[in-house]
Amino acid sequence: MSFDVLQDKIKALKNPTVAGLDARLSHVPPHILKACFAEYGENAKGAAEAIWRFNQGLMDALEGVVPAVKPQAAYYEALGWQGMEVLERTIRYAKEKGFFVIADIKRGDIGSTATAYAEGWLGETKVGNSVIRPFDADCVTVNGYMGSDAVKPFLDCCIAEDKCLFVLVKTSNPSSGELQDMVAGDRVVYKVMGDLTQRWGKGTEGSKYGYSAVGAVVGATYPAELRELRKRLENTFFLVPGYGAQGGTAEDVRYAFDRFGRGAIINSSRGIFYAWSKTGKDGMDYQEAARAAAEKMRDDIRQYVTIL
Amino acid sequence: MSFDVLQDKIKALKNPTVAGLDARLSHVPPHILKACFAEYGENAKGAAEAIWRFNQGLMDALEGVVPAVKPQAAYYEALGWQGMEVLERTIRYAKEKGFFVIADIKRGDIGSTATAYAEGWLGETKVGNSVIRPFDADCVTVNGYMGSDAVKPFLDCCIAEDKCLFVLVKTSNPSSGELQDMVAGDRVVYKVMGDLTQRWGKGTEGSKYGYSAVGAVVGATYPAELRELRKRLENTFFLVPGYGAQGGTAEDVRYAFDRFGRGAIINSSRGIFYAWSKTGKDGMDYQEAARAAAEKMRDDIRQYVTIL
Repeated sequence: MSFDVLQDKIKALKNPTVAGLDARLSHVPPHILKACFAEYGENAKGAAEAIWRFNQGLMDALEGVVPAVKPQAAYYEALGWQGMEVLERTIRYAKEKGFFVIADIKRGDIGSTATAYAEGWLGETKVGNSVIRPFDADCVTVNGYMGSDAVKPFLDCCIAEDKCLFVLVKTSNPSSGELQDMVAGDRVVYKVMGDLTQRWGKGTEGSKYGYSAVGAVVGATYPAELRELRKRLENTFFLVPGYGAQGGTAEDVRYAFDRFGRGAIINSSRGIFYAWSKTGKDGMDYQEAARAAAEKMRDDIRQYVTIL
Repeated sequence: MSFDVLQDKIKALKNPTVAGLDARLSHVPPHILKACFAEYGENAKGAAEAIWRFNQGLMDALEGVVPAVKPQAAYYEALGWQGMEVLERTIRYAKEKGFFVIADIKRGDIGSTATAYAEGWLGETKVGNSVIRPFDADCVTVNGYMGSDAVKPFLDCCIAEDKCLFVLVKTSNPSSGELQDMVAGDRVVYKVMGDLTQRWGKGTEGSKYGYSAVGAVVGATYPAELRELRKRLENTFFLVPGYGAQGGTAEDVRYAFDRFGRGAIINSSRGIFYAWSKTGKDGMDYQEAARAAAEKMRDDIRQYVTIL
């Protein structure tokens, strides 16, 4: 599933947003928690099943509104292997529902280790004369601090599987500048990372929209940098965190899109899956609340972006 | 388990090395694979059980020689949740045997996401009125490209649990310089990362040897940088990859140690667990081969380093 496929899904729903599936237990509605703890106990199994039910309900509610989901691996790992099992289930279900799945793993390692990550998350692992496809996401996030050696194995896997990846370039958090904004002569670290992203992606451009298989993560909280990177990296698809809770607005994120209103997807996590906390109904309405929040975000962005 | 504990374990065995537990199926002796495939099938379960048996055998063989083990998460993730279950078992077994466990996860994310990683890998996750301790390693590796926001949640967890972490500073791979060697005025990216490591660790120094809870990953393949960083970061414990297969020698790695022969641990992965491939005995002798390789590496390094 290349960025061509993602752009098509965005176009079909006229919605360039991705819903984070980052559920911590504290964000799961009480009635789901209660039911799962009663059935499985207050343990890893009960917790994982609660997250599974919540994710499933969210995806049922978001179908037809949001083109993509982004499970954040950390929250599943925090429940150990039982969390990972639910992550596998979540990705499988998302794909059945037609969502484009970005596994937010931010892995960064080299050589055969990076290959193992790529196989586990995007491709297949050889087992004797069989193969298994453990997580099988459409796309992953990757950390490039270790350089090309950390990205190439993922890219090779993406080319083989017709999938894609995002490299962290300029992240949305307050301290991102400590390293990413270091100025070396006329070069800045995050721009060098952006240029590397473009270089790595060369030759992998999709036939329909022209985006390479190597996208970039660029935070909505740094709109000037976002705008500049958009101009600099014309074949690069952007994943934009930082909208909503972190302070990025629809006006900020419009700079992520090219003149056709393409080339970017904006993430919202808590704003969607935790919308139920603001309706005063104890989470019984988490599905309606999530869908309404997703529609509101879509409409907010559409004020500034017309997708051609 | 702080770096004080690790240094004591190193001292007791007079061996400043850590054995990587990075087993890909292609490195598991054929007789183990055959038995597990016969019992569980050529599937994720069969593969995971083969790795479990291999790991267990390796740890039995390395007990009393090597003070620490370093499972690389990638190879377990490549088998999906069943791999993660075996990783939990591997860490539990390693701790029972008295090994110091460094989970090589190279995670790097921010805020509540980084907290979730830290809870999952080092601490505990709250589930209703209970807590679970999924992976419960003694130490992890962390990627600091996102800045302090990515490291602080791990550090907070380390302080609460009396554990420690390693931040990637100057990695051992050929392309590490693409970003890490960028020169900004009189500053170089990897040195800035090193200085940040020192700053983050301030106030967490162990009472016995004085190392802070924030260590640094510095590759053996860049001995000049290793030497310089050792002088620059005197309270920082080093994890040094790149010995052996990647080209780092015992002569190179001696620069990682301070004048007491302390403050560093040298990793070897394939050189130990895949030693059986060089004896011509089809892997039946993988335990003896691993132990002999670990002893050889220890003796090689002891030619240059005296641990006081």
